[in-house]
Amino acid sequence: MIYDLIIVGAGPAGMTAAIYAARRKINFLIISLDIGGQMSWSSEVDNYPGTTHVSGFELVKQFQDHMKIYGIKVKQEEIVKVAKKGNICYVKTKKGIYQSKTVIIGSGKKPKKLGVPGEEKFLSKGVNYCATCDAPLYKGKVVAVAGGGNSGLEAALFLSKYAKGVYLLEVLGKLGGEAHLSDKVIQDKNIKVMTGVKILEIKGDNFVNSLVYEKQGKISELNVQGVFIEVGLVSKADFIDVQKNRWGEIMLFRSTKTPEENITSVAGVFAAGDVTDVPAKQIVVAAGEGCKAALAAFDYINRWDKAHGKK
Amino acid sequence: MIYDLIIVGAGPAGMTAAIYAARRKINFLIISLDIGGQMSWSSEVDNYPGTTHVSGFELVKQFQDHMKIYGIKVKQEEIVKVAKKGNICYVKTKKGIYQSKTVIIGSGKKPKKLGVPGEEKFLSKGVNYCATCDAPLYKGKVVAVAGGGNSGLEAALFLSKYAKGVYLLEVLGKLGGEAHLSDKVIQDKNIKVMTGVKILEIKGDNFVNSLVYEKQGKISELNVQGVFIEVGLVSKADFIDVQKNRWGEIMLFRSTKTPEENITSVAGVFAAGDVTDVPAKQIVVAAGEGCKAALAAFDYINRWDKAHGKK
Repeated sequence: MIYDLIIVGAGPAGMTAAIYAARRKINFLIISLDIGGQMSWSSEVDNYPGTTHVSGFELVKQFQDHMKIYGIKVKQEEIVKVAKKGNICYVKTKKGIYQSKTVIIGSGKKPKKLGVPGEEKFLSKGVNYCATCDAPLYKGKVVAVAGGGNSGLEAALFLSKYAKGVYLLEVLGKLGGEAHLSDKVIQDKNIKVMTGVKILEIKGDNFVNSLVYEKQGKISELNVQGVFIEVGLVSKADFIDVQKNRWGEIMLFRSTKTPEENITSVAGVFAAGDVTDVPAKQIVVAAGEGCKAALAAFDYINRWDKAHGKK
Repeated sequence: MIYDLIIVGAGPAGMTAAIYAARRKINFLIISLDIGGQMSWSSEVDNYPGTTHVSGFELVKQFQDHMKIYGIKVKQEEIVKVAKKGNICYVKTKKGIYQSKTVIIGSGKKPKKLGVPGEEKFLSKGVNYCATCDAPLYKGKVVAVAGGGNSGLEAALFLSKYAKGVYLLEVLGKLGGEAHLSDKVIQDKNIKVMTGVKILEIKGDNFVNSLVYEKQGKISELNVQGVFIEVGLVSKADFIDVQKNRWGEIMLFRSTKTPEENITSVAGVFAAGDVTDVPAKQIVVAAGEGCKAALAAFDYINRWDKAHGKK
């Protein structure tokens, strides 16, 4: 069986594309291991127009409730490979292979790894990438945050509400991020900022108990029960071979001659949201792009059907 | 005084841009005669992700409530002209002239006129362009809808709930629009479909009382108390001289080299939403584009300030 459309990812881009696909009554799948994407990591979302003061979790639920009206169920399978052969897109997951006329990649971004010994071993045993999700687990404990950019600053401030103490470690000589956040961090007596610090290893037994770092050539160890890694994000697009920019983001093209938008370097493969090179990484933008990609895919499906003598 | 940004239009694109501008604490204005744009014409909105079964009016209110959190007030003035001279954008309204480093045009679309005698004269005296807004005024009366495309079909169905009788007049030989809508119209015994009908004049005293039309060379008159004109939309962009496509939509450009999006043919002038050539005319797309335009404008403002020795 050949689907009209397979949507890869269930963040704001993928869920919006699914809502439009269901309204258009086309034959489609939405496949994603997680639901909500980065939206679900936010402790508070204040910039999705029309909805104020909701947690990321609540906003994800609102999107899910919207999908439920149309009976949309996310197929929770891990994507292995997406490729086009002839006129068919093949989507391979750990459970099977699906065929489709079109694909929308809305797989978003994932946290960048620090790349130090112990990081993999203690994953979810003290090593975390989402302060919003996991901060409450560290009540009364001492934690370190790796990364002094915006997301590191936010993580430190949020963790400070739970943890007994927070070390904020930045490899550069000073904090990055926005001034109003770094000011707050500096004023927070529960947060100790350490700059020019290179993390070398995360150590522990069953669970993290320390972190080894170097500062000005001197190697030291911090006793911490948790390490939150906030050193940036990377696009989840390894599974597909399309043109990407130097940050690994899928490049979008648009023509002012045809109405086709959100097209990638491969015909029939569309992309939307944070996985793409659209610079505004915002929920409302991802949702809008998901809609644009869906409408572009519908046009493509019509052309596909005509070319193959259907309808 | 030179503003950082002036947003023209207060539909989903303009209001989203305003929310982002307020969060960024830049010095901006949002100017629009009406608030909500085409959103406010919808009887029900079911495709703005996360929000279901709301009227257009309610969704406009949700956006307005969002703006209120930041104290944003729409300056309700009519735009006369937007032009750039040197490095300054000038926005002229019927009340004054405002200067700004950047402008975002989010003025949307307005209904196309039929262009027949009586149309102007009886405006709001029987001649209407928004069935959703004005249908309840025609309870128990006989009305005509001009235009057999999707919006005409929807208008006829909605009017049929109030009016004693609805004539649906299409100039072509058959109805356009989606099959599920035209099927409903044909099944509705309160709607009389007339195709191949050219409207010649709208007549009345203080209020509309008839409509003159031609069919196959024969001129006839219909007794109606209301005429709803649903013959399409045009971009509200006459007040600015930028590159437009053949439908009068502002052409957007994007570079895959720089992160600048939603740029027009004039530097510092950005555009978003239905006034542009982005083919997906949807609320969520307009909102997303409004955000993208705002973020692009912020970058431009930073460059402007640096070039002019500020900050």
